[in-house]
Amino acid sequence: MATADRGEGAFRRQLIESGLVLDAGVEGLYGRSLAYEEIAAGVISLTTRTGAGDGAQSLSFPPVIPRGLLEQTDYLKSFPDLTGSVHTFRGDDKLHARLLALVEAGRDWVEVLEPADVVLRPAACHPVYPLCTDGPLPQGGRRFEVQGWCFRHEPSLDPARMLAFRMHEFVYVGDPDGATAHRDVWLKRGTEMLEGLGLDVEVVVANDPFFGRVGRVLAANQREEALKLEFVTTVADPESPTAITSVNRHQDHFGQTFGIRSADGAVAHSACFAVGVDRTVLALLKTHGLDPGTWPAEVRARLWP
Amino acid sequence: MATADRGEGAFRRQLIESGLVLDAGVEGLYGRSLAYEEIAAGVISLTTRTGAGDGAQSLSFPPVIPRGLLEQTDYLKSFPDLTGSVHTFRGDDKLHARLLALVEAGRDWVEVLEPADVVLRPAACHPVYPLCTDGPLPQGGRRFEVQGWCFRHEPSLDPARMLAFRMHEFVYVGDPDGATAHRDVWLKRGTEMLEGLGLDVEVVVANDPFFGRVGRVLAANQREEALKLEFVTTVADPESPTAITSVNRHQDHFGQTFGIRSADGAVAHSACFAVGVDRTVLALLKTHGLDPGTWPAEVRARLWP
Repeated sequence: MATADRGEGAFRRQLIESGLVLDAGVEGLYGRSLAYEEIAAGVISLTTRTGAGDGAQSLSFPPVIPRGLLEQTDYLKSFPDLTGSVHTFRGDDKLHARLLALVEAGRDWVEVLEPADVVLRPAACHPVYPLCTDGPLPQGGRRFEVQGWCFRHEPSLDPARMLAFRMHEFVYVGDPDGATAHRDVWLKRGTEMLEGLGLDVEVVVANDPFFGRVGRVLAANQREEALKLEFVTTVADPESPTAITSVNRHQDHFGQTFGIRSADGAVAHSACFAVGVDRTVLALLKTHGLDPGTWPAEVRARLWP
Repeated sequence: MATADRGEGAFRRQLIESGLVLDAGVEGLYGRSLAYEEIAAGVISLTTRTGAGDGAQSLSFPPVIPRGLLEQTDYLKSFPDLTGSVHTFRGDDKLHARLLALVEAGRDWVEVLEPADVVLRPAACHPVYPLCTDGPLPQGGRRFEVQGWCFRHEPSLDPARMLAFRMHEFVYVGDPDGATAHRDVWLKRGTEMLEGLGLDVEVVVANDPFFGRVGRVLAANQREEALKLEFVTTVADPESPTAITSVNRHQDHFGQTFGIRSADGAVAHSACFAVGVDRTVLALLKTHGLDPGTWPAEVRARLWP
């Protein structure tokens, strides 16, 4: 769990000392100041405007999703270590007394809990796929803009690796050509959007952090087919750039999982453009300094037109 | 767990049929449309403007808080059944195989999980009290504006009783007189704010839903001392009005718990004004109809000036 401090610690300290973020008491958990939130709102609003012409349906979902959705999506196979399963207390007065005795004794009190029907949401787009199962998709597929809080259990000293963070996505669900076109369009738009913010980004072939032995094979396949492209830039770690945004082709993964059919009746393909809102805020602070009032006028104009 | 349908079901159906909210697949969990989110943003921005003159420090926190914070605040004593404890997987390839076998067999797979260092946040204000422990508070106390996603495990057909919802608070931490003044000022401001939105609210003495036998005593005490006042109005259930906002005096509960001292060295008192953002959105939809475009001009002007 421990992370070597390769410079992340220095940027983390600067962020906290500036008051922009607050150490919320657990590794990877931060409070946000008003100034930080204004930058985040700027990033969200710029992303919305960048995709405004596509007629995407704009949706927001809470930080938790149905447990069954996580079970369906192979997430437990690929990323069990990032999972946040939600548990609650369903007992009576007697079991409650046992719970309080455990807490009082400073012992692990979760043995009296039961799993709730929800888990924390690992990616913004997961709730939209079940919306596409009502018959074949319309010609041209469906497009969603979806955002909200996500959770990945990866405690770290790197402020760009938060336990809880916001993701803002444009998702396409339709046929294979449409998915490839979505990738290509957003590769171009994403580059223009991030470069327009004065960020020095590079697009690289990447892989998700698949778990364990089998995961190494999955990661190699994902890279070989260039299914995931990341926009990376230096944030906290000067040795290793951070992905702040990505474009992902899922092939027919979600189509198969949820039984989604494209207009021609075939299993649907999907793709998404995903902005890491908090990571983009941190990249802006790293690039232009901790006082947004002194940022270049053209960057300010794009964030807060 | 089952809730009798006393009319909540009808409003829930209208909300879903209108497309304003989406059934996210579990009782009490909803997606939000852009139109819904614009109302929520209006409520949040109006609340901010209503308290803008107080010099409160504006902070946002993620949907999860440190586990230790929940243990400290007596939440497990008072509301164990509402708790959302977060658990994750920390095993190796072998335990992972066991996890996948359980999922595959449709069995309960949480036995292989371990508690994470975080739990879901039950109220917006909890993260601010640990910020007040660095010596005595300044003269006049400290004021916070804090908002974000909260979780309470109370599955229900009533759309006003969501598993995950947003709360927006103005918190005072200082001396007893300051806490009473905060209550009085926000009682007036809250009434004006909600009546200005055309909502027919009544202020009533209330209690939190304390758990079990001991909880009945706690609830009676809370009512006797009028520590909690709720702004109630009809939302989904025509038989029983819903609290959409509240003012709460905590006496020295958080002061004792966290060791906070006021300027004169005594144990600090605290109070908060808490807007249920989603409940206020639902009250507006119930009162003025499902199409915000047709709402009274003065209501629209207050939400979207």
